[in-house]
Amino acid sequence: MAHNSAVTERLTQQHGETLEQALAAIRKRDYWSAYPESPSPRVYGEHAAADGEAAFRQRLGEPWGGQTPGAAGVVATERSPYGLELGVRYPRVASDGLDELLEAARRGMGDWRAAGPQARAAVCQEVLARLHARVFELAHAVQHTSGQAFVMAFQAGGTHALDRALEALVYGFDQQTLHPATALWEKPGRGEPVRMDKTFTPVPRGVGLVVGCNTFPTWNSWPGLFASLVCGNAVVVKPHPRAVLPLAMTVEACREVLTEAGFDADLVTLAAEAEGDGLAAELAVRPEVRLVDFTGSNAFGSWLEEHATQATVFTEKAGVNTVIIDSTADFSAMCDNLAFSLALYTGQMCTAPQNLLVPADGFDTDDGHKSYDEVAAGIGAALDRLLGDNKSAVELLGAVVSDAVLARLDAAADGGTGRVLVESRAIEHPAWPQATVRTPLLLGLSVADVQTYG
Amino acid sequence: MAHNSAVTERLTQQHGETLEQALAAIRKRDYWSAYPESPSPRVYGEHAAADGEAAFRQRLGEPWGGQTPGAAGVVATERSPYGLELGVRYPRVASDGLDELLEAARRGMGDWRAAGPQARAAVCQEVLARLHARVFELAHAVQHTSGQAFVMAFQAGGTHALDRALEALVYGFDQQTLHPATALWEKPGRGEPVRMDKTFTPVPRGVGLVVGCNTFPTWNSWPGLFASLVCGNAVVVKPHPRAVLPLAMTVEACREVLTEAGFDADLVTLAAEAEGDGLAAELAVRPEVRLVDFTGSNAFGSWLEEHATQATVFTEKAGVNTVIIDSTADFSAMCDNLAFSLALYTGQMCTAPQNLLVPADGFDTDDGHKSYDEVAAGIGAALDRLLGDNKSAVELLGAVVSDAVLARLDAAADGGTGRVLVESRAIEHPAWPQATVRTPLLLGLSVADVQTYG
Repeated sequence: MAHNSAVTERLTQQHGETLEQALAAIRKRDYWSAYPESPSPRVYGEHAAADGEAAFRQRLGEPWGGQTPGAAGVVATERSPYGLELGVRYPRVASDGLDELLEAARRGMGDWRAAGPQARAAVCQEVLARLHARVFELAHAVQHTSGQAFVMAFQAGGTHALDRALEALVYGFDQQTLHPATALWEKPGRGEPVRMDKTFTPVPRGVGLVVGCNTFPTWNSWPGLFASLVCGNAVVVKPHPRAVLPLAMTVEACREVLTEAGFDADLVTLAAEAEGDGLAAELAVRPEVRLVDFTGSNAFGSWLEEHATQATVFTEKAGVNTVIIDSTADFSAMCDNLAFSLALYTGQMCTAPQNLLVPADGFDTDDGHKSYDEVAAGIGAALDRLLGDNKSAVELLGAVVSDAVLARLDAAADGGTGRVLVESRAIEHPAWPQATVRTPLLLGLSVADVQTYG
Repeated sequence: MAHNSAVTERLTQQHGETLEQALAAIRKRDYWSAYPESPSPRVYGEHAAADGEAAFRQRLGEPWGGQTPGAAGVVATERSPYGLELGVRYPRVASDGLDELLEAARRGMGDWRAAGPQARAAVCQEVLARLHARVFELAHAVQHTSGQAFVMAFQAGGTHALDRALEALVYGFDQQTLHPATALWEKPGRGEPVRMDKTFTPVPRGVGLVVGCNTFPTWNSWPGLFASLVCGNAVVVKPHPRAVLPLAMTVEACREVLTEAGFDADLVTLAAEAEGDGLAAELAVRPEVRLVDFTGSNAFGSWLEEHATQATVFTEKAGVNTVIIDSTADFSAMCDNLAFSLALYTGQMCTAPQNLLVPADGFDTDDGHKSYDEVAAGIGAALDRLLGDNKSAVELLGAVVSDAVLARLDAAADGGTGRVLVESRAIEHPAWPQATVRTPLLLGLSVADVQTYG
């Protein structure tokens, strides 16, 4: 197998204009997207939605089509927060398979490095094009692993994630091509100048490990994956056990295009595990692994930073987002806006507001003075307005991603952690009767309760 | 104290053309230098050499003029490999002063960050201009700490080091200005577009720690120092105890220009220590330190990589350079060339060849078949030709930098580590009778002697 430059040249041609536009966009930093965010049939065609759903359903209960070197046996770890049993079986990677996996991952790196940034960018762009062609199927996979509502899964898990992947890819491409690949260096001297023909080769770091999360399996994994790949690294993708399918589809697309272009498919591999296997911790400290892109808990993120010292480690850990509420020109609109931000995906996004700081004595608004409790009541009323109709509420709330989140919600509802200001309600999903859907709960805490809000 | 923008604007004007040329040079990667490398009076003026030497001599036996927050007492740790006692006294930093030192280092970072890349580049360029104005003085300081011969100290420790500093600075500037500082982001939607006025601020990492080495105190420290500084970080410079003066002069120039431009002088500080204090290890793991630039031993470099996990660590460790000698079209010229590379600064450069691999049976040359021993004899004869005259030999060899290097040479000369193929000779320095000057020794080793050559 060797780099088929006829293929990469065709792909370079095909995606050249998009690459140029993406380069211009990162230079100007204005709005630009290559992937329409509306799942409308006017944009994607009449059959796209149905075809995508059918393709998704065809995967259920079946083995994933790809291979992983070093894997032994299979795992099926995904159950939709909407109640659907996915039952997709993936090759299981365990400790004793890591030598084989990482040897395979590195095997193709020589060719991949030698192909240069332009060919690598073209391959990565083609992968994105194929993922885009399957964006409805992907949206279902994201919905039924993360619990996001369908439109959100289509956008945040599909088109917007593609935007971020392309952005990461083009930043990597840009850095590799900022400086010339060759230069004639002539230092004047007595008589003849000292002449050197210089060649510069962007050198990859090694194997990149991408550790996916449950809530945003694509959005949070693709930038690291495609940045590593376009820079010549191999990538091992270790998905969250409850959100494998979106990344399995990604790895599938990568391997497909790599193979077609004559590269080693094992440059991108899927390392699935059973819940509790702790595979990421083992992989992250392997000497072959030189890059780690992680999204997840503070505890494991900090562990990685401390222990994976052989690698460059990027971690996106939990966010604690605070809103200071001490004045407003429109109390009702403010409450509506906060209610929307709290309700969207049941506050499970890392950008969701968590801590709303309100003066103990309240504050004056266009609607008169509002006490602390009245502010809470205002937000509660706004949540009721927003989520009064089950059918539209579920499209905003999505489903609760995991039992752990549900347990935290239940503990708060019991009043043990603070005074419940706005209660959480269970909502019946019109289409998915077994879905776990809840409205946000507002808890009254004081500064001392840092264990709960910190 | 506040950023005096009249000063930085003037400096920006003054150094603008050089910055443009440097930007063009990193884009083209051809030869370009802002600092003439010839110490000739035709270039630097008739009095530059004498003035520089006088300025250097004036420093001897005196306290360094700068201050270091948190320091207590003084150290005087430098003795020239040429036999000159420097006796310059520096503020000594020890464990109990680190809180104060690092608090002071961080104090000015807010203003420094707010000033932006252009003002920071102008300040850094002005520092380089002042160091260039003192390049003869600096060359003496480098000569009498590293043991480099004067012309080498002038070039590698002066003008070429300035080239590297400017290069690092302009790469940092380029990365900070590749993307716009502000952008209007407009996402089309139904009705009015979503509009965001975006501002992007390059954010420094924190305090940079530069750990200098004995042999190339400026060349190996300046790139890290000026890269950190231009990107908005503060820098603590921890020089090698036997090569403080060149970096003390650097810190002096930095503090001078920072003060004139209204910034906090403690953005750049000198952390001198007594030999064996182990200050670098303490500083490197402090939470305030977020960048480490180190040149030195493999052992400490690896220690830093493993332990300074809170920082981004750059290490330049020892090089083992190998020459495979298995054919030549000109045996005599090859021997001359190798002899030069071995003799230059007594092989103490990290780029000096160390391991010459010769086939056990020798090989054919333009001068007939040469056995293993004949190759060694050829190089020995070339060394004799090159270093036969003491006066010119010392200008090539420089002096042996430390007792440790001398001890290794003596151990090899005793024959305990291998068969001596070419003996080392002591050479009397015509100007510095106490200088430790030696010619290179060639040791015959086999593959098994990895402890010696590895």
